[in-house]
Amino acid sequence: MRSQPPVISFLSDFGLDGAAAICRGVMLRICPTAQIVDVSHTVRKYSVTDGAFILTMALPWMPIGVHLAVVDPGVGTERRPIALRVGRGDVLVGPDNGLLIGAAGALGGIVEGRELTNRELWLPETSATFHGRDVFAPVAAHLGADDASFEDLGDPIATDELVRLEEVEPSVADGSVDSQVIYVDSFGNLRLAGGIEQLQQALTPGDLAQDLQLEGLDERDASASHPVRFARTFGEADPGSLLIYVDSSGHLAIGINQGNAASRLGLASGGRVRIRRS
Amino acid sequence: MRSQPPVISFLSDFGLDGAAAICRGVMLRICPTAQIVDVSHTVRKYSVTDGAFILTMALPWMPIGVHLAVVDPGVGTERRPIALRVGRGDVLVGPDNGLLIGAAGALGGIVEGRELTNRELWLPETSATFHGRDVFAPVAAHLGADDASFEDLGDPIATDELVRLEEVEPSVADGSVDSQVIYVDSFGNLRLAGGIEQLQQALTPGDLAQDLQLEGLDERDASASHPVRFARTFGEADPGSLLIYVDSSGHLAIGINQGNAASRLGLASGGRVRIRRS
Amino acid sequence: MRSQPPVISFLSDFGLDGAAAICRGVMLRICPTAQIVDVSHTVRKYSVTDGAFILTMALPWMPIGVHLAVVDPGVGTERRPIALRVGRGDVLVGPDNGLLIGAAGALGGIVEGRELTNRELWLPETSATFHGRDVFAPVAAHLGADDASFEDLGDPIATDELVRLEEVEPSVADGSVDSQVIYVDSFGNLRLAGGIEQLQQALTPGDLAQDLQLEGLDERDASASHPVRFARTFGEADPGSLLIYVDSSGHLAIGINQGNAASRLGLASGGRVRIRRS
Repeated sequence: MRSQPPVISFLSDFGLDGAAAICRGVMLRICPTAQIVDVSHTVRKYSVTDGAFILTMALPWMPIGVHLAVVDPGVGTERRPIALRVGRGDVLVGPDNGLLIGAAGALGGIVEGRELTNRELWLPETSATFHGRDVFAPVAAHLGADDASFEDLGDPIATDELVRLEEVEPSVADGSVDSQVIYVDSFGNLRLAGGIEQLQQALTPGDLAQDLQLEGLDERDASASHPVRFARTFGEADPGSLLIYVDSSGHLAIGINQGNAASRLGLASGGRVRIRRS
Repeated sequence: MRSQPPVISFLSDFGLDGAAAICRGVMLRICPTAQIVDVSHTVRKYSVTDGAFILTMALPWMPIGVHLAVVDPGVGTERRPIALRVGRGDVLVGPDNGLLIGAAGALGGIVEGRELTNRELWLPETSATFHGRDVFAPVAAHLGADDASFEDLGDPIATDELVRLEEVEPSVADGSVDSQVIYVDSFGNLRLAGGIEQLQQALTPGDLAQDLQLEGLDERDASASHPVRFARTFGEADPGSLLIYVDSSGHLAIGINQGNAASRLGLASGGRVRIRRS
Repeated sequence: MRSQPPVISFLSDFGLDGAAAICRGVMLRICPTAQIVDVSHTVRKYSVTDGAFILTMALPWMPIGVHLAVVDPGVGTERRPIALRVGRGDVLVGPDNGLLIGAAGALGGIVEGRELTNRELWLPETSATFHGRDVFAPVAAHLGADDASFEDLGDPIATDELVRLEEVEPSVADGSVDSQVIYVDSFGNLRLAGGIEQLQQALTPGDLAQDLQLEGLDERDASASHPVRFARTFGEADPGSLLIYVDSSGHLAIGINQGNAASRLGLASGGRVRIRRS
């Protein structure tokens, strides 16, 4: 008997209309004592990058456990189903499309990878379109129930052959930082590549104490520029005014006190921005 | 002491703003060890057919337990509150409006039905508009807690008098299948009445290996026809192109690789379509 | 050993993309046996009044426990983090911005308040923008795990100095009640300040048995008036027609049988309405 229930966290782009619940059911039949923690099921459809961002943000705060993640536009094709054991002791389960890599890094890095080739741990019948239900959820649950070990999952895989997402790096010049929106959160805050160090390389403390300018580099009217203030917290900006801040995960971010920056600025994931001295 | 927590699954059209949580609270007060599995609470408002579809898809994957389902436009009227015991051993609890019938069939068929006439298992006070909270949730929780038996719930009911939804059947001709959208999932995939057998009756393997035509039969411009390919999985179609596939529950379905078929085709639940030889 | 898992309910405006899950993770690391009940995480962004309404509705139905609530536009500013012990025995944890007051009243009234000044119960590092994760969730979890007492949380606070939301009171005249929309639920039903007693003061049983008139007092066209019927339940009104009813929490409410009253009437939270004799 365990004294604590095994934790299985679960992220997908399945939405809220039953597919995630089906996976939950599959897991509870295999591991009835599981404490399943839904990370998100409203990940933008097919957006592996959004899923990877949320996972990377969230998993370090979870108890050590099994982490199931399924954003899987390549389901039924040659993309491999995998599991990664990480430094902290967790196991991540999902498709080999880059979804798991950032989070694995945030949990101490990949120690070992396996391809999920052991079909005894899958459901007896598998469909071509729902590996979340047929492959990933049962494997995660067998790990949670401790009736399969990491080694049982399948063949070892070379971690340098794993599919990885392109990394976005900000570029720093004297007086400006060019970056990119890597995620738009549910408040409409724009999370940017890079952190406080890039801003401090480009701008002096004097600059940061004054209004800065924010430009959307993909806008047709290249002259469109918005005054924006560097602030520690939303309450330091007037309601409705733009601020640049360091978000709770250390990223630069753009928000509006009690407003939606993405709507106001017309910016989405992938949008390029420049933050510069006025 | 049970070794496994009792499972109560829960579906409603209550949305995400607290009504489902109230029912959860009611259940946990009666059955504190319950493992409550939310199937969906964003069922299209008042849509008994959508709720029935999701239940029928999801419940076979759940552990054996109690299944609470409330999509109940007739709350407070003469419609009966019921419970159905099914072949697999589960009990379904909800309104007698057709919501539970399909799922009961998928769980081995109805063995016995009861009208929820035993008010001792309801909350002491009941409202006219929220039987989810006052009637259905407490009954489900008493079953989960095993402090009421199925027989305790109320008077037996004749199962042939239960309200049933109209069943949609595809019609097959040489070279074409006419069917109807029975559900639009959160990806915008159109789930259709009928399965692979209807398609194979109408079309030869040679037909199925080539482009087919998809027509929306309710469209004004009856000539609108879309090329569509039969595929085993989304990855077999080019991103953005239409495919016909057999979904993970065995239904014919129409989707777009990394796109939204319902938006593209302007089709919703109830829409009639023809799939035909080119 | 407890025989029942500790219950922690949780409401926020964090949305569904991972922030609430992070708080869940934080809590489960501190209190692995917690039964966390999500009340809602789709509270209208920054709307303390909507959050307060939902909490006040929901918490009386929850088991006695710890109730975490975070709608916190003032995060990182001078607003105090607080906990309130209430008559029923629960503890409410959240910001001192009025969010918790109504629910505290519904749970037997505030017995004692504390400011969360004991940083040993917070996470070791705190951000300026995510006190849900860094302050409120860990405090709630320590209470749930019973490894901190209410007295451990911090300095006592005078309950008459707590921030309170303005209360909305209906006004009654002969033949009419003026009230205000205090919440729009997910069905589009308009929950109003006041209950059956105000309606009965203004209108005779004879009035209530006939069509009434509903006017939106903020509409430009002041003559716009809608016939509406007082009904016990939705099924008593024809599909698509307006009704006034007493909702399951005792508030007056306006709905449409199988429709959305807020959309139809163009009314939102804060909108003023008059219900009058025809």
